[in-house]
Order: sequence, then structure tokens, then C-alpha cells
Amino acid sequence: MQRAWLAEGLGTSLLLATVVGSGIMGQALSPDNLAVALLANAAATAGALYVLVTVLGPISGAHFNPAVTLAMRLQGSLDTRTAAAYVLAQCAGALAGVMLAHAMFDLPLLQPGVRARTGSAQWLSEGVATFGLLLTILLGLRHRAQAIPALVAGYIFAAYWFIASTSFANPAVTLARALTQTFAGIRPLDAPAFIAAQLLGTALALLAARTLLVPAATPSPEPP
Amino acid sequence: MQRAWLAEGLGTSLLLATVVGSGIMGQALSPDNLAVALLANAAATAGALYVLVTVLGPISGAHFNPAVTLAMRLQGSLDTRTAAAYVLAQCAGALAGVMLAHAMFDLPLLQPGVRARTGSAQWLSEGVATFGLLLTILLGLRHRAQAIPALVAGYIFAAYWFIASTSFANPAVTLARALTQTFAGIRPLDAPAFIAAQLLGTALALLAARTLLVPAATPSPEPP
Amino acid sequence: MQRAWLAEGLGTSLLLATVVGSGIMGQALSPDNLAVALLANAAATAGALYVLVTVLGPISGAHFNPAVTLAMRLQGSLDTRTAAAYVLAQCAGALAGVMLAHAMFDLPLLQPGVRARTGSAQWLSEGVATFGLLLTILLGLRHRAQAIPALVAGYIFAAYWFIASTSFANPAVTLARALTQTFAGIRPLDAPAFIAAQLLGTALALLAARTLLVPAATPSPEPP
Amino acid sequence: MQRAWLAEGLGTSLLLATVVGSGIMGQALSPDNLAVALLANAAATAGALYVLVTVLGPISGAHFNPAVTLAMRLQGSLDTRTAAAYVLAQCAGALAGVMLAHAMFDLPLLQPGVRARTGSAQWLSEGVATFGLLLTILLGLRHRAQAIPALVAGYIFAAYWFIASTSFANPAVTLARALTQTFAGIRPLDAPAFIAAQLLGTALALLAARTLLVPAATPSPEPP
Repeated sequence: MQRAWLAEGLGTSLLLATVVGSGIMGQALSPDNLAVALLANAAATAGALYVLVTVLGPISGAHFNPAVTLAMRLQGSLDTRTAAAYVLAQCAGALAGVMLAHAMFDLPLLQPGVRARTGSAQWLSEGVATFGLLLTILLGLRHRAQAIPALVAGYIFAAYWFIASTSFANPAVTLARALTQTFAGIRPLDAPAFIAAQLLGTALALLAARTLLVPAATPSPEPP
Repeated sequence: MQRAWLAEGLGTSLLLATVVGSGIMGQALSPDNLAVALLANAAATAGALYVLVTVLGPISGAHFNPAVTLAMRLQGSLDTRTAAAYVLAQCAGALAGVMLAHAMFDLPLLQPGVRARTGSAQWLSEGVATFGLLLTILLGLRHRAQAIPALVAGYIFAAYWFIASTSFANPAVTLARALTQTFAGIRPLDAPAFIAAQLLGTALALLAARTLLVPAATPSPEPP
Repeated sequence: MQRAWLAEGLGTSLLLATVVGSGIMGQALSPDNLAVALLANAAATAGALYVLVTVLGPISGAHFNPAVTLAMRLQGSLDTRTAAAYVLAQCAGALAGVMLAHAMFDLPLLQPGVRARTGSAQWLSEGVATFGLLLTILLGLRHRAQAIPALVAGYIFAAYWFIASTSFANPAVTLARALTQTFAGIRPLDAPAFIAAQLLGTALALLAARTLLVPAATPSPEPP
Repeated sequence: MQRAWLAEGLGTSLLLATVVGSGIMGQALSPDNLAVALLANAAATAGALYVLVTVLGPISGAHFNPAVTLAMRLQGSLDTRTAAAYVLAQCAGALAGVMLAHAMFDLPLLQPGVRARTGSAQWLSEGVATFGLLLTILLGLRHRAQAIPALVAGYIFAAYWFIASTSFANPAVTLARALTQTFAGIRPLDAPAFIAAQLLGTALALLAARTLLVPAATPSPEPP
């Protein structure tokens, strides 16, 4: 069990170090064309997710995301105590990851975010982003479980680009990104509405998965 | 059956949200270098296709494209009623996806396209684009069916770049993209010729696949 | 047999259409930063190679390259008559592919190349490029044959960037690229030395593979 | 045995040729936006790693890195004499690869690095970079050994971007990059501290892997 908590903490921390660190590097090298920075940011995050979900998945399931843990809890894959420990480990890991990125780039360790991300279009974006991520995971687990690392990486790469908020899609990530003033940051003030939208997206994805999937007892036919 | 229609509608809608949304984001962040925008647009579309075909393929076959549905109908994989329902779901989903992208980026929901895309070179391009897509699917299904998600993603990425029209290759996508004035748009006026070229490309791909493949009864030898 | 020739011709033609077409598109959209054009060119070529080798490999082996056909002939995988027909189909296909790219972009169909690519550093580059490609194929076939499409795609992407000539690594591609004045072109005058260097690289790769691989009778141990 | 040494030398040499060569090409084509150069550099390196680890892994294990060889020695996978020969082959190969890149781009073969990379933030970066690489390999070997080529490629791509030093993570690479004045170079003076940080990262990764993994006798549960 403690191995699983450690895996969630370590994985979320390296995920955040990648998200924030590659954002800093991108903006530093391409201050005049932020599309290049976002391209690097998205591809680096996808690369890290592919690796972390593959190597830590067998230990903890590689949630790295309280929304995923909540969905798994609601589906009965975890008990409440484990789920709570996962969320705690994710939040602590996310915070540590942001500080690690700042340390590597020689910046102040904690710096409350200043980038405004608010309004109904942004909230819709976060709802869609999380809906898509959870749907990917819920259907992927049923239809091709061993492709989950590539599916999550592919989805998040796309979501950085087609989602107007660049797709946080993760409450722990949202909290941690409220503590950086760099490329990936968000105002602390704007975080709660993002998280609410993410939870709504999670609920909708659970509903959609229930509608789209035949009950698990009946084995579903094979691809594609 | 209704699960399949839902999967076609939902998948096409998320596909269009990706195509249009990542186009908006790319152009917004890189107005002076549209190659960077197209790079992001192509990579995001490829990522979304890989995910959507993998997770929805086992439910509906993941056509998301009336040209694919038509080819499958002609090959006898679907009956006419199902094919018609698929095409309807695809068109409705495509329209919903464009509106979703507009909503996330806080733009007017419907906006008739203004970008001219016409002339024989463009029509040739759409014919080649759809020929290539259908050939990829028809040969891929026979030779390595479980790689279809990666094959479709890889093909479309390449086609965004080597096809002069950036490869619509999909009648439902063409109709839906006639309702946006953003990066991915097309004049409604220019859509019918695109669709005609796509159907011609589909026919040629069916012919080429019939020529290249040994009849299905004889099991074809394994890869390469 | 005729299916194989057709597959070689069609595959080489779509490969060249991708190489030349994505070069035109890249340069048109990013005239002031050719690195972005080369990035798109390399990624589109990798995508097309992954697809074409996967779907046509089971039909012809997916050589698309006289250097590969020569190596396979020397290893005894093909007879001389078939090898000659392959090379012919590849050259004809390559030429057709360049013309197709020109047609899609509304350019003169044939236009003798004007870009100088000569000198010992360029020849060394082509030797290394072809050595690497052939080594990838020869070792890959032995160690993980089903990954050949991804291996060839990954190698060519890298080679576009680390090889000073951007890695032609293919005599048929070299001939065909001597007939375009666009991004991917080469002066006809410079083609023969490129092809000589490619053949030398092929010979060296055969030698290296013989040294590195235990004789085929002894089954080699499994990865990695 | 000699096959293995040759594979380590050849693989490390082609790896370095890619790292240095694609850096030269990137900077030459995008002098005003080094993010584009780093994007190409990272993607080319990832492509080369995927290929080299796949095709040479079955021959030598495809370490290409004294830190990896050291970890394998400490885990008892190699004897000391073989480990020493590997490190020698890696260093000689790395040097040859840098010279090869210079030769292809028509530059002086050896040119002591001039780019300063020093200070505690840089050392922290190298420690984290190597920790992450080794953890990826140690956990990956246990949980999904056949994905090692893609895992190493995905990790290094991400690390080029989220690690402030762009992630050398390899003592042989560090030594060899001290002999180029191009994009990928480092001052010889700064190399020893980089290597010390890399060895510390290696030790920490061994410790973390021991903590995260159940002892090998007990078969670990399957993914994810």
C-alpha cells in the first residue's frame, strides 16, 4: 500500500516538474512565439505521461489525478481510505514538483500565480477537458488496457491545443499551478471554479461511459 | 445499435472540436508563422484520432466519416439502414463539435466559412487525400487491424502537410468546417466540389484495394 | 508478383508526394524559418513511411528504395528479375509522386532541380544516412520485425536532422528529387555522387550487420 | 562478447552524431528561435534512441551510457570486466560520434566546448535528469521490458525540455559534448561536476527502484 502512495506522489511530482519546467524552458527560448512554447510544453508532457503511466501503473494504477481517483472510487476499484491517501499523495507530490521545477531553473520556490483564467468559456473548457480525459481512461481500460499510457499521452497532447484553457483537467495540477508565475501558472483565485468544472466533467464522463459500454459481465467484442 | 450511433456522433464531435479548436489556438499563438499553427493542428488531430479510434472503435468501428461508412457499406460490412444512421450521427456530431470549439474559445457559435478553397488543384488534392485515407484503412484492416488507430493518425498528420488542401478527406468534416471562419474553415460554396472529389477518391481506393489484396478467402502472408 | 510491383510503385509514389509536397507546404507557410519547414517535412515523411510500410509491407516487403532491394538481393531474399522489376517500379513511382505533388500545388509538373548539394561533407552524409537506414532494417528484421514501420519512420525523422544533406538515402528518391525546384530538390548534376555514396553506405551496412549478428541458424537471444 | 562491445561503441557513436548533428542543423536553420532548434534536437534524439535501443538492445543491452552500465553492474547483471569494456566502448564511440557530426557539417573535427553550464541549479538538474532516466529503465525493465526503447525515447524528449540543463544524463555524452562548440556543447571545465551529479542521480534511482519494486522473486501484478 505504501508503495502505491509513494508511486502516486513521485509520479505526480515528476508530472508537474515536466508541465512547469517545460513551460519555463519554452517561454525562455521562444518569447515571441508562444505556439512553439506550447508545442514543446504539450509534447514534453505527453512524453512524461507515457513514461510515468507505464512504469508506475503496475504499482499504483498511475492516477496522478484526484478526478481519476474519485472515478475509480465511485466504480468501486478502491476503498475510501486508499482514495483519500492517493489524493493526499497527489497534492503533496504536485506541490513538490512545482518547487523542483523552480529550483532547477533557479527561480523562487513558491510564487502565487498571477495569470487570470476565468469566465464561462474557460469553465466549459475545463469541463470538456476532464470529460475527455476520463472518457479516454474509462473506455480505454475496458477496450485496450495496455494502451492506456499512449492514450493518456495522446489525449493530453491534443487537449493542450483544442481546449481554450490548455486543459488542466486535474485538481491537484490546478492547485499546484496556482503556485507558479511562469508559463503554466493560474491565479489561486481562479482555481476553485476550475476544480468544480473538472468534477462536473468527471461525473459526465462516468455517465457517458455507463451509456456507451455494455455491462462488464458481457464480454465486449474485440477491436476496432 | 444505439450505442454505435452515439459513439459515431460523440467521436465525430470531439474530432471536429479538436480540428477547429487547435486551429484557433494555433493561429492565435502564431499569427505570423502559420506553419507552426498547422504543425500543432496536425499533431493535435493525430493525437485525438489515435485516442478516439482506439476507445470508440470497439463500439461502432470508429468511422467518423461518411466516406468510410460508404466504403464499408459497399463491402457489405453494414446494412443500408445502419449506414444511413451513421452518416446522420456523423453530420450532427460534426456540427456539434464545431459549435463546441467556438463556445470554448468564446466565439459566435455558427459563422459561415469565408476561406476560398477551390480550383482543380484543390479538387485533385481532396481526391488524393481521401484515396490515401481509405487505402490506409482498407489495407490496414486486412494486414494489421490493431494498428488502425496509429495508421489513421499517422496518415492524417502527413496528409495535413503533403496535400495542398490540408486534407479534409471527409464529407461530414467538410460540411462542418463550412460553418467556421477560423483557421480550419472553408466557404460553403466550395464544399460540394470537395465532397465530390472525396467520393471519387473513395471509389478509386476501393478499386486499388481490390487490385492489391488477394481475395479474403486466401489468408494473406504475414508482415513485412 | 504483379501485386508486389504495383505496391512498390504506389508506395514509392506516395512517399515522394509526401516528401516533396510537405516541403512545398512547409516553405510556403514558414519562408523565414526553414527549421519549422524541415520539422514538418520530417514528421510528415515519418508518418507516411509508418503507414506505407505497414500496409504495403505484407504485399511487397515495402522497399520503396533500390538500395534496400539491392541489399535484399545480395542476401538472397529476391531473385535478380524481381529485384530489377522492383527498382523499375520504384523509379517510375518516384517520378510519378513528384509530378503528383507538383500538380496538387499547381506547379509545373517537371522542373529540373537547381539546389546545389555537393562536396565531400555531403557525400559522407549520404553514406552515413544510407548506412544507418540499412543497418536499422537489417538488424530490425532480425530482432523485431513487426516494429520495422516504426523503426524506419523513427530513423528517417532523426536522419533529416542529424545528416547534413537531410538524408536522401535512396537512389530512386534522389533521381526524382532532381526533378523539382522546390524545398526538397537537388541539381541533376549532383545526383550521381549522392547515389554512389548511398551504394557505398549500403555495402558497409551489410558488412556491419554480418559482424553484429550471430549467424541466422543460431536463434538470437530476446530483447532488450 | 566482442559483438556487445561493438554494439555499445556503434550505438553511442550514432547517438552522439544525432545529438550534435541535429543541434547544428537546428541552430543553423533557426538562429533566432532556439526553441525550434531544441524541438528538432529533442525529437531527433528520441527517434534515434528508439531505433538504436530496439536494434542493438538484443546484442548488448543498449546501455550507451556509463551510468546505466554502472547500475546494471551494481545489480549484478554484468561482471566488472564487461562493465569496464562497455564504458570504454561508450566513451570511444561518443567521441567518434561527435567527430562524425563535425565532419558531416564540414566543421573542425575537435573543438573544445565554450558554453558555460555550471552552478547548483544546473547540478540539481543533472541529478534529476539521471535519476529519472535510470528510474525509467529500472522500473521499465521489470514492468514492460519490450517498451524500453519507447520509454527511453519518451523520457529523453521530455527531459530535454523540463530539465534546465537540457538533460545530458550520461557521463560519456558529457565528455564528448565537451569537444564541440556547437549547440550541444559544454565547457570541459564544467563536465566533472555534471558527471558527479549524474552518478548521484544514479544512486538515488537505484534506491528508489528498490523501494518501489517488490522483490523480484514475488512476481509483480500486471498493468496498469
